Amino acid sequence: MIVAYHEAGHAIVGHVLPNADPIHKVTIVPRGQAGGYVLSLPDEDREMVSRNKLQDRMTVALGGRAAEELVFDDITSGASSDIQSVTQIARQMVMRLGMSEKLGTRVYGQKEELVFLGREISEQKDYSEAVAEEIDREVARLVSQAYKRSQEILAKYRKELQAIAEKLIEVETLTREEFEKLIPPIGEKRIGGTPVMAGSNSR
Amino acid sequence: MIVAYHEAGHAIVGHVLPNADPIHKVTIVPRGQAGGYVLSLPDEDREMVSRNKLQDRMTVALGGRAAEELVFDDITSGASSDIQSVTQIARQMVMRLGMSEKLGTRVYGQKEELVFLGREISEQKDYSEAVAEEIDREVARLVSQAYKRSQEILAKYRKELQAIAEKLIEVETLTREEFEKLIPPIGEKRIGGTPVMAGSNSR
Amino acid sequence: MIVAYHEAGHAIVGHVLPNADPIHKVTIVPRGQAGGYVLSLPDEDREMVSRNKLQDRMTVALGGRAAEELVFDDITSGASSDIQSVTQIARQMVMRLGMSEKLGTRVYGQKEELVFLGREISEQKDYSEAVAEEIDREVARLVSQAYKRSQEILAKYRKELQAIAEKLIEVETLTREEFEKLIPPIGEKRIGGTPVMAGSNSR
Amino acid sequence: MIVAYHEAGHAIVGHVLPNADPIHKVTIVPRGQAGGYVLSLPDEDREMVSRNKLQDRMTVALGGRAAEELVFDDITSGASSDIQSVTQIARQMVMRLGMSEKLGTRVYGQKEELVFLGREISEQKDYSEAVAEEIDREVARLVSQAYKRSQEILAKYRKELQAIAEKLIEVETLTREEFEKLIPPIGEKRIGGTPVMAGSNSR
Amino acid sequence: MIVAYHEAGHAIVGHVLPNADPIHKVTIVPRGQAGGYVLSLPDEDREMVSRNKLQDRMTVALGGRAAEELVFDDITSGASSDIQSVTQIARQMVMRLGMSEKLGTRVYGQKEELVFLGREISEQKDYSEAVAEEIDREVARLVSQAYKRSQEILAKYRKELQAIAEKLIEVETLTREEFEKLIPPIGEKRIGGTPVMAGSNSR
Amino acid sequence: MIVAYHEAGHAIVGHVLPNADPIHKVTIVPRGQAGGYVLSLPDEDREMVSRNKLQDRMTVALGGRAAEELVFDDITSGASSDIQSVTQIARQMVMRLGMSEKLGTRVYGQKEELVFLGREISEQKDYSEAVAEEIDREVARLVSQAYKRSQEILAKYRKELQAIAEKLIEVETLTREEFEKLIPPIGEKRIGGTPVMAGSNSR
Repeated sequence: MIVAYHEAGHAIVGHVLPNADPIHKVTIVPRGQAGGYVLSLPDEDREMVSRNKLQDRMTVALGGRAAEELVFDDITSGASSDIQSVTQIARQMVMRLGMSEKLGTRVYGQKEELVFLGREISEQKDYSEAVAEEIDREVARLVSQAYKRSQEILAKYRKELQAIAEKLIEVETLTREEFEKLIPPIGEKRIGGTPVMAGSNSR
Repeated sequence: MIVAYHEAGHAIVGHVLPNADPIHKVTIVPRGQAGGYVLSLPDEDREMVSRNKLQDRMTVALGGRAAEELVFDDITSGASSDIQSVTQIARQMVMRLGMSEKLGTRVYGQKEELVFLGREISEQKDYSEAVAEEIDREVARLVSQAYKRSQEILAKYRKELQAIAEKLIEVETLTREEFEKLIPPIGEKRIGGTPVMAGSNSR
Repeated sequence: MIVAYHEAGHAIVGHVLPNADPIHKVTIVPRGQAGGYVLSLPDEDREMVSRNKLQDRMTVALGGRAAEELVFDDITSGASSDIQSVTQIARQMVMRLGMSEKLGTRVYGQKEELVFLGREISEQKDYSEAVAEEIDREVARLVSQAYKRSQEILAKYRKELQAIAEKLIEVETLTREEFEKLIPPIGEKRIGGTPVMAGSNSR
Repeated sequence: MIVAYHEAGHAIVGHVLPNADPIHKVTIVPRGQAGGYVLSLPDEDREMVSRNKLQDRMTVALGGRAAEELVFDDITSGASSDIQSVTQIARQMVMRLGMSEKLGTRVYGQKEELVFLGREISEQKDYSEAVAEEIDREVARLVSQAYKRSQEILAKYRKELQAIAEKLIEVETLTREEFEKLIPPIGEKRIGGTPVMAGSNSR
Repeated sequence: MIVAYHEAGHAIVGHVLPNADPIHKVTIVPRGQAGGYVLSLPDEDREMVSRNKLQDRMTVALGGRAAEELVFDDITSGASSDIQSVTQIARQMVMRLGMSEKLGTRVYGQKEELVFLGREISEQKDYSEAVAEEIDREVARLVSQAYKRSQEILAKYRKELQAIAEKLIEVETLTREEFEKLIPPIGEKRIGGTPVMAGSNSR
Repeated sequence: MIVAYHEAGHAIVGHVLPNADPIHKVTIVPRGQAGGYVLSLPDEDREMVSRNKLQDRMTVALGGRAAEELVFDDITSGASSDIQSVTQIARQMVMRLGMSEKLGTRVYGQKEELVFLGREISEQKDYSEAVAEEIDREVARLVSQAYKRSQEILAKYRKELQAIAEKLIEVETLTREEFEKLIPPIGEKRIGGTPVMAGSNSR
């Protein structure tokens, strides 16, 4: 089943990347909406997230689609919500967090809150078409970089992808210990995330 | 009657394509809004839909219009809702499912939900004009590919189209067995769809 | 009175065109809003309308303005609602019915329904500026083709236009029989419209 | 006072133009909002308005501003509502009445009615930027033609303008008879307007 | 204090310009929102305002900022509401009053009234981008002309600016008589404004 | 911890700049939303803010991000609200305060107030695309100037940045006296801000 490869893809990329949250369980048992899922626990509550960490998150999110494309001659709608997260992260980096050198340390777009609805429903474009194109290019660059990285990681761990997917089809759920038996340990992976920015946030 | 050719067109294209849902009945008896219809049962409940399957769905949907154009010197408004479905599928592939290489694995447009109306009424454009043109080109490419494929299939099965349409004008409804007597079996057509992605979905 | 020429223009173009609805009465007696009117009965209830028929409808609608321009050295606001219908038909053909080869078998624009108002109030542009220009060009082409056809027909039936208009000024209302005495029968005009698409509609 | 020249300007242009409504009174006594006014009675109730008549109406409306510019070394905000009428007429001609050859016999823009407010509040742009520019050029052409015509008329009747304005400053209100003593009769002016389109309207 | 120079700037420009309202008091005592103010009484109630008068109003409004720039090596947010008035006047001249030759005697933009809110909240753009650029250029031209004029006047009356500002810092408020002792009388300044357009308005 | 460097960055830049508000406390103890903060007391209530002062405020706001980039091989989301303030100041300068020479002494954009919501929710674009690009360029110029200045200051005070950050990690909060022991006094820093514009505002 393609879903097993999809989930194995997320898990392997998350295992390999130094700034990704640690893997605790891999499963293809559907949970409500989502078909299968990789359970990764955030290390701790933190609000200062670094650029490196955001890039790793995007790469993990695209690991599912990258696995589908690598193994099968087709891709599926299964990556739909992954694609949505990736877009959101990349747009935040460029439009809210000043993490694109080209677009500078400023904010783009004004949030409109409709108080009477109890929620914000739209974002007002407060920049020119020329900037809109630059934003699109920067977001595209970040997303495609992340996708390429996840493709490279899975190409390197192709055998492990096969083994983990097959195991998942067999037993449906892998604990962290079972998962780690099927993949070599990555030296620099830290349990606690990047300690430098843990536990603090700034005004 | 042109409607018989229209429905026969849908049925033949659906019969021929490997990833389309199987045909169970073909009829020109109007059912509420729609004049005639090809009843095709989805094989099972599944949420991971592959790119190939979506392309086949588009091709089946355009089989009605393709038949009209092939047989008559005119086209009709009968394809109106088919055209709407095709547009929706193609836009989903490009804007939500990351299935266009040019536009990448990201989402375009933000859904705005108006909670107090209990439904979503609009989609906010959150991309530049340059991207809007690229989206239009990709959607156009997907739609025209599907139309060309349905034209090619019907040109190949021109005689069967004639026979099925004439039979429909005579008896109004064909069961699957009656339909399959008028068209040669397609070797690779599977009852259960593409088994690889059946029965699962992914987060 | 210019209104007599306007109505005679509609009637003659409708009489001549093979796919137009048959004329039952021609009158310049104002009925509510509209000053005069050509009463043409739709042959039967049908929902599959062909491209040819839609083009003829546009041509009939512009017959009034074409008559004004042909006979007088001025044009009037009397064609206002005709112009509105023509625009609506041409836009439907291009944006909803896939009847423009250049714009393909897809739908343009999303209808927004405001449920709490009980009606739809706007149409959301979901295409690029480049497509908007193409739509404008195609609509312009369809409208100007229809106008030219109605001008050509009236130029050919100039004498009959004069006779019918004068008769209308005299008697105000012409029955079908009275109307047909003033204009030669058109061989290929069928009472029942284009039989091929009558009495059916398609999903 | 500049207002006397402004009102005299309207009156003279309206007197000279063959399709303008006849002048019944000229006054500079403020009536509610407006400072002075030229009272011109519409000949009768009619809904078929010709292009010539609309062009004459625009020319009369701009007669006030043209007089200000001709006589003084300055222009005033007194022409504000005249300018608004002129814009409305020109836009109607181009966007609703098919009276611009370049833009053809079609309608531009969709009216949005907000039923719950009991009135229409906006007009949706349903055309491309290229068409928007064409509309602007056509409206500009119509408006500037009308302005030039009113300037030419007043230049020709410069002496009468002076005499009527001075009389107005003296007596404040002129009846039709008093007005006509100060200006030569215009041969082709008809009381009943252009009889050809009177008393009728068309669907 | 910079505010004294700012207010002296307004007062001097207003004193010098022939069409500006006469100065009655100059003060730096804050009154509610505004820090200091130049009190100028409008001569009478009038609705026909001339182009010359509107240009002078803009020049007076920018006298405060011009004084800041002339005297200090910095500018402040104190001119914020002056800048807003100037923009409003210039846009009215171009978009409502037909006072830009390039944009002609027509109105741009449609006011939308939201009746249920009891007020108008937005203005609908009903013109092309090309016109929007032309409007921006014309508004820019009017505003920068006015700014240059106020700079030139203050450069000429540099000594008086210094004297009046110093006096204001000392006594905080100057009556008209005190103010006029510090600046030479301007021959052509009329108490009653431009008599030609006083006391009347026009439809 | 990176937050200590971030806060030290704000404090040092604020200490060095002549027009910035004086530093009273530096801390990395989270206060509600914000992780750490530099407490700077505004000297007094004043509404006339100069261009120099606004530029210094922007530079202080970007001191946190500049410190992150200088010391670590990464940047974080901790600067998010700083980036928002900087954008707001730069846009105000360009669009409301006439502080960009290229865009002149005028206002851009119309505030829309939705009275029934008790607050303003959007700003209407009332300028052309060409102006929108100019605004983007001017805002970008102001923001990047401020960022460069804060980078230069921190590069110059690199050793002090290290010392203050280390002290902050140790003791979490520094009073003004403790802070000033770790950094040389800046001669021209005035407690009361720029006296020239204090305590007054202008209409």
